[in-house]
Amino acid sequence: MTMKLALIGCGTVGSEVVRLLHRQETDLTSRIGEPIEIAGIAVRRGGRDRGDLPVDPSLFTTDALGLVNRDDVDIVVEVVGGIEPAREWITTALRAGKAVITANKALLAEDGSALAQAAVDGGADLYYEAAVAGAIPLLRPLRESLHGDTIHRVISIVNGTTNYILSRMTETGAGFAEALEEASALGYAEADPTADVEGFDAAAKAAILASLAFHTRVTVTDVYREGITEVSAADIASAAEMGCVVKPLCIASRDGDVVSARVHPAMIPREHPLASVNGAYNAVFVEAEAAGRLMFYGAGAGGAPTASAVLGDLVAVARNRRAGATPMPPTVYADLAIRPMGDVLTRYHVSLDVDDEPGVLAEVASVFAAHGVSMRTVRQSGRGHEAVLVAVTHTATDAQLSTTVDQLSKLDSVRRVASVMRVEGEV
Amino acid sequence: MTMKLALIGCGTVGSEVVRLLHRQETDLTSRIGEPIEIAGIAVRRGGRDRGDLPVDPSLFTTDALGLVNRDDVDIVVEVVGGIEPAREWITTALRAGKAVITANKALLAEDGSALAQAAVDGGADLYYEAAVAGAIPLLRPLRESLHGDTIHRVISIVNGTTNYILSRMTETGAGFAEALEEASALGYAEADPTADVEGFDAAAKAAILASLAFHTRVTVTDVYREGITEVSAADIASAAEMGCVVKPLCIASRDGDVVSARVHPAMIPREHPLASVNGAYNAVFVEAEAAGRLMFYGAGAGGAPTASAVLGDLVAVARNRRAGATPMPPTVYADLAIRPMGDVLTRYHVSLDVDDEPGVLAEVASVFAAHGVSMRTVRQSGRGHEAVLVAVTHTATDAQLSTTVDQLSKLDSVRRVASVMRVEGEV
Repeated sequence: MTMKLALIGCGTVGSEVVRLLHRQETDLTSRIGEPIEIAGIAVRRGGRDRGDLPVDPSLFTTDALGLVNRDDVDIVVEVVGGIEPAREWITTALRAGKAVITANKALLAEDGSALAQAAVDGGADLYYEAAVAGAIPLLRPLRESLHGDTIHRVISIVNGTTNYILSRMTETGAGFAEALEEASALGYAEADPTADVEGFDAAAKAAILASLAFHTRVTVTDVYREGITEVSAADIASAAEMGCVVKPLCIASRDGDVVSARVHPAMIPREHPLASVNGAYNAVFVEAEAAGRLMFYGAGAGGAPTASAVLGDLVAVARNRRAGATPMPPTVYADLAIRPMGDVLTRYHVSLDVDDEPGVLAEVASVFAAHGVSMRTVRQSGRGHEAVLVAVTHTATDAQLSTTVDQLSKLDSVRRVASVMRVEGEV
Repeated sequence: MTMKLALIGCGTVGSEVVRLLHRQETDLTSRIGEPIEIAGIAVRRGGRDRGDLPVDPSLFTTDALGLVNRDDVDIVVEVVGGIEPAREWITTALRAGKAVITANKALLAEDGSALAQAAVDGGADLYYEAAVAGAIPLLRPLRESLHGDTIHRVISIVNGTTNYILSRMTETGAGFAEALEEASALGYAEADPTADVEGFDAAAKAAILASLAFHTRVTVTDVYREGITEVSAADIASAAEMGCVVKPLCIASRDGDVVSARVHPAMIPREHPLASVNGAYNAVFVEAEAAGRLMFYGAGAGGAPTASAVLGDLVAVARNRRAGATPMPPTVYADLAIRPMGDVLTRYHVSLDVDDEPGVLAEVASVFAAHGVSMRTVRQSGRGHEAVLVAVTHTATDAQLSTTVDQLSKLDSVRRVASVMRVEGEV
């Protein structure tokens, strides 16, 4: 017997899947118990030269749905992305009892429950390790290894482009635009970097991580999102003065029956394990009741690492299929409310350009106090029109902080609110 | 229906398992689909007051084997350790088709294949996430997530006691004895620390990791083992001068059809992700063909983290059982040879007390050259009878290096071979 695979998409990840299947054929057969055979590869445009791939050219087709529907297909691997027609391919496959492996974070984050339902209806496996943090084994640890524990919080760096940009800004003192240009030149940023730098990519991953960690349903619209485009060289320098670094964080946390999920740049202390995750690397830091603090680190993107995650799922799914095992979908039994961003508690670093006059500090402090925001440290430097006042707060809600900043900007002595940044990861 | 659990052992880990089962009862029931009930708890001595545990005192028994053999028991959790009678309990349970969860690294490393065979014979699940690196989800990622990839090397810190001792020596400049005393006072080292400081504990884990990573059979007798008792404050200082730290490493590597597994202290560059794993924390660094470099980090010991790993396995095993899934043992299809330590290639840091005379360096260099060991850097400091010569080599075999050191110690100009340490983790 052989296990027949339909591959939808043959770009960077898809072609690497083909290469790995070929190169590791003997090992994969030993691990699964029977060979994997590619039944067909769906591509958008036919006729392209793919002579570098170790595969029969007659396997290529432009009819993805037709391939999915073929009777001899056991497993569908979707590495195209986007909402449609990926949703149709995946739900069709699952409902027909075919196992699906996908890296489609956007679809999972928007409509994961429809996919999960199709998997249940068809009695089929749905695996998606490659959707978050590339090769880092993450979804399986979250949905299985930590299944006997209670997860309180997941803080992660799941976007390599923004981590690369902020790492370079930290290392070289460059501004955002310059670091982005370098990232583009090196292929770490796409021609249109919006999905990365504005946090859309990370927001989709935040929804998937929060759903798995808290056994509830979180979609991308529940995720608060802020990009890194406003992060300045001055913010990075200010963070360094506090013993912190600025990182593109994705935070999912639970407090009683309420969860929150958010994506934004933030300062974290240099001693925090996430602080030394640099360049295009990803990492996921988990705080659990009994297990304590855990971190998973690795390459978050790239053809080979993502293909590794796909093949890990492929072996699992193929073994399950061979064993006739009942699929075990992630457990989604908790119906937790989403905390609005205004109610989320954290600490803040606020930097103000002020006039160096007597009474400025008192004026600023009274605005913080009036909105119930307690100051942890305050520091003034410079003289005359160059004076800068930096305040770090104790925890306050986002709404409290916003109103405070709004009021501060109206003070005569405050020439400009230079920056506001959250401070996370107290060690 | 309820799933009935026999707990063998009620020490630090066992009592934490009882507490977690109680505290998370509702969640666990939701995740599994039916409640877990403790059928009995086997302890060595009856009559002890365990009033702090949320469990009916009548459940305690001193007849472990009797408990395992009870018809109503579905799952056995063994957290006693040691070879016998644990082997009998586990194999009896597995052969009777009962799932087993164990944290017994010594038994797995000595006779893992007998346990695996019993699991196959009985058609039962055998899970042991808690056996290596406590709560860090590791065995599941290795045996499942990376199942579609080829692992080249696993470098890990899997012993919290020795990592704590070496971390403190690095932070404070203390010697081994002083740091060990501190570790004992804080409960990080046992009254008899031999198993930890001589590397026996890590060697068992090395055998388990190597077996899983390379789909072959490696037992504890295949593991080269060296403790940390000879590491001196001077070694730590020497490492720092090279931009390195000394870490208690456990290395499993594969080269073609040959594997090696070894446990010893070694210098690694400060930029290496393992270098910042300090205190009692554990971490496992994996180098895979497609996935690249991955690291898993977390608490390696302690009642709660270990119990978290046990409960993760418990949920998996219980769900499998409910679904009537065929157990899927780790795949052990490769029959790889073990490379003798003498043939293992690495780099070395050699520190010699020498007389500061003309020609010493030439004499030393010629001994290295005569044994085919190429020097990467050499540095002489001090004067007269206080002179120290430090050489760092390119890769050489352990046998080449041993002979070289032996010859060096016989030179008139060399008063003492002060230390020899391996250098790992080239970044």
